[in-house]
Amino acid sequence: MTVYNFSAGPAMLPAAVMERAKAEFCDYKGCGNGIVELSHRGKLFTEVIENAEKNFREIMNISDDYAVCFVQGGASMQFCMLAMNLLEKGKSADYADTGVWGAKAFKEAKLFGDAKLVCSSKETKYDHIPAFDTWTRNPEATYLHITSNNTVAGTQYMKFPEVLPNVPMIADMSSDIMSRRINVSDFGMIYAGAQKNLGPSGMAVVIIRKDLAARTPATVPTMLRYSTYIDEKSLFNTPPTFAIYLFGLVTEWVKEIGGLDKLEIINNQKAARLYAAIDGSEFYKSPVAKADRSRMNVVFRTPNEELDAAFVKEAAAANLTGLKGHRLVGGLRASIYNAMPMAGVEALIGFMNEFERKNR
Amino acid sequence: MTVYNFSAGPAMLPAAVMERAKAEFCDYKGCGNGIVELSHRGKLFTEVIENAEKNFREIMNISDDYAVCFVQGGASMQFCMLAMNLLEKGKSADYADTGVWGAKAFKEAKLFGDAKLVCSSKETKYDHIPAFDTWTRNPEATYLHITSNNTVAGTQYMKFPEVLPNVPMIADMSSDIMSRRINVSDFGMIYAGAQKNLGPSGMAVVIIRKDLAARTPATVPTMLRYSTYIDEKSLFNTPPTFAIYLFGLVTEWVKEIGGLDKLEIINNQKAARLYAAIDGSEFYKSPVAKADRSRMNVVFRTPNEELDAAFVKEAAAANLTGLKGHRLVGGLRASIYNAMPMAGVEALIGFMNEFERKNR
Repeated sequence: MTVYNFSAGPAMLPAAVMERAKAEFCDYKGCGNGIVELSHRGKLFTEVIENAEKNFREIMNISDDYAVCFVQGGASMQFCMLAMNLLEKGKSADYADTGVWGAKAFKEAKLFGDAKLVCSSKETKYDHIPAFDTWTRNPEATYLHITSNNTVAGTQYMKFPEVLPNVPMIADMSSDIMSRRINVSDFGMIYAGAQKNLGPSGMAVVIIRKDLAARTPATVPTMLRYSTYIDEKSLFNTPPTFAIYLFGLVTEWVKEIGGLDKLEIINNQKAARLYAAIDGSEFYKSPVAKADRSRMNVVFRTPNEELDAAFVKEAAAANLTGLKGHRLVGGLRASIYNAMPMAGVEALIGFMNEFERKNR
Repeated sequence: MTVYNFSAGPAMLPAAVMERAKAEFCDYKGCGNGIVELSHRGKLFTEVIENAEKNFREIMNISDDYAVCFVQGGASMQFCMLAMNLLEKGKSADYADTGVWGAKAFKEAKLFGDAKLVCSSKETKYDHIPAFDTWTRNPEATYLHITSNNTVAGTQYMKFPEVLPNVPMIADMSSDIMSRRINVSDFGMIYAGAQKNLGPSGMAVVIIRKDLAARTPATVPTMLRYSTYIDEKSLFNTPPTFAIYLFGLVTEWVKEIGGLDKLEIINNQKAARLYAAIDGSEFYKSPVAKADRSRMNVVFRTPNEELDAAFVKEAAAANLTGLKGHRLVGGLRASIYNAMPMAGVEALIGFMNEFERKNR
């Protein structure tokens, strides 16, 4: 039975990754124990964490100016941690308000200093990314924070804002990291909760320009300092070993299927097919501005809430799960991360057509 | 092939837990996806987290005055988080210095206020727990912090210090939680990194008296406030779902084998056998005061460092792994948590006898 799981995260992992993790779950490389049981300082796990980082650097084309850190707490912990470390005293940080997660990041930043919104699409329920020429940016800002893909509202930056000199751009890429080619050197820091495109929940991956870690005030505790993760290669304390292991398997899978260039083409095709099905119907509607539609989280609705609920229920019975929209906005949402194959999108479109025919 | 893994953590999990997790890794309860792929807000995971907490409360006999929270970052994150939340302004916190982890907790506390050592066995390499009547306690302390079992040095509190009125006792029980009967109501808070007796790495389990969470200053960010975890039942953000799932399986295993009363007897027997083998030989030595010897981490050594190294190597070849002492102290260490069966301890003793015979 193939079940296509459209959850926004935790989400489907590549079938090959799941099968491999299962096969070696109790006996990793013939050592007689599972990877989850092994010391984080032993030879086997050292290989795992080093290979995961190496693959990720290769896939994302990350230069040596940047550290890759594995930090517990997900993206939500990064909301406070980044401000604690990087919001310089006496300066102000710029935040783009393009969704609920960015708004949460802004809220935490204000605990640690001055933070200002440069734009907001909140009034129209975050249905678009405000045009960059309307943003009120501060050229002296200590950093600019954006959310590259808005999981709840279903929007995504197709291009990124201009990089101003001395204003590092920090991006929460939780829901579109490793789904398309981006230029890491345009960013001061990129972070992502792992549970969408990278692996299981329980970890954020942080890509940080090493020089920025020097900003951290002495008052920040050890576990919340980026320098701790950089200096100790994410092994200051026991890291989430199983999450790092699964992330490593996912990076191997990405390399095998041809890396980001190939993945981006597939992701674009999947999204194009699904949006075409929505736009080609009178029954389904997307509330999102066409230019800003996410290739990862496709938000749509039927003519009314009762039909939305029926859709979710009947789809699940047809082995298409996790299609309920986020509790904050309702409606429907199909999250089609890297691990969702085109066959899953086709199955969903087939179901949509059938559901429309029966309920039109 | 049975490999007995004596690692201090991540450590062996019960074989039955590992087999079950493997069997349902790709298809949890017939849903067509693995638990690691499922939404943390879905029905299946909701059952998992609720059952895990329910079992744990039952096993540990935790009253409704206490919340059970699942927090990312391990015990090391708790070192700062507890001080951030509970070290009241204008007051001082008491810390017992009985090992390297307690010393780290003390270091982080000093970032958030006044903290004082009430005792220390550092000068004798933490080879004992200082007698309670020598402690210089402050009856006005905002809390008292202890480390119930010292993983590195191999000591353990057999009894706990007297509970002073208005001084909540906070215990890091990372390496002996759920290994023996304790009275939770003697403590204001108990926390433990999961990767020894509870499950995999990537999570701390926190038992906190609910009224203490009101102490948290308004300046503490959302993800670092105990109230966030209490109010949202550890689901404010995406929790480490796979770690909680494995923890839940471990709690079921504990119940099946007869709960803490049974486990404590088995743990005492395992430790008694191993210490008897050490004490009964002229070859092996324990550096730890007899009265304070840990039932979880048995620290010992051969007559010299070369033999220690040979012991670790030859033991591994005999499928007895993870016996190297902590990098800070050297020597040998056998961690015999709940999941280590008596057969593993017997195999180790057999090997020790053979190694002694060959190298005496």
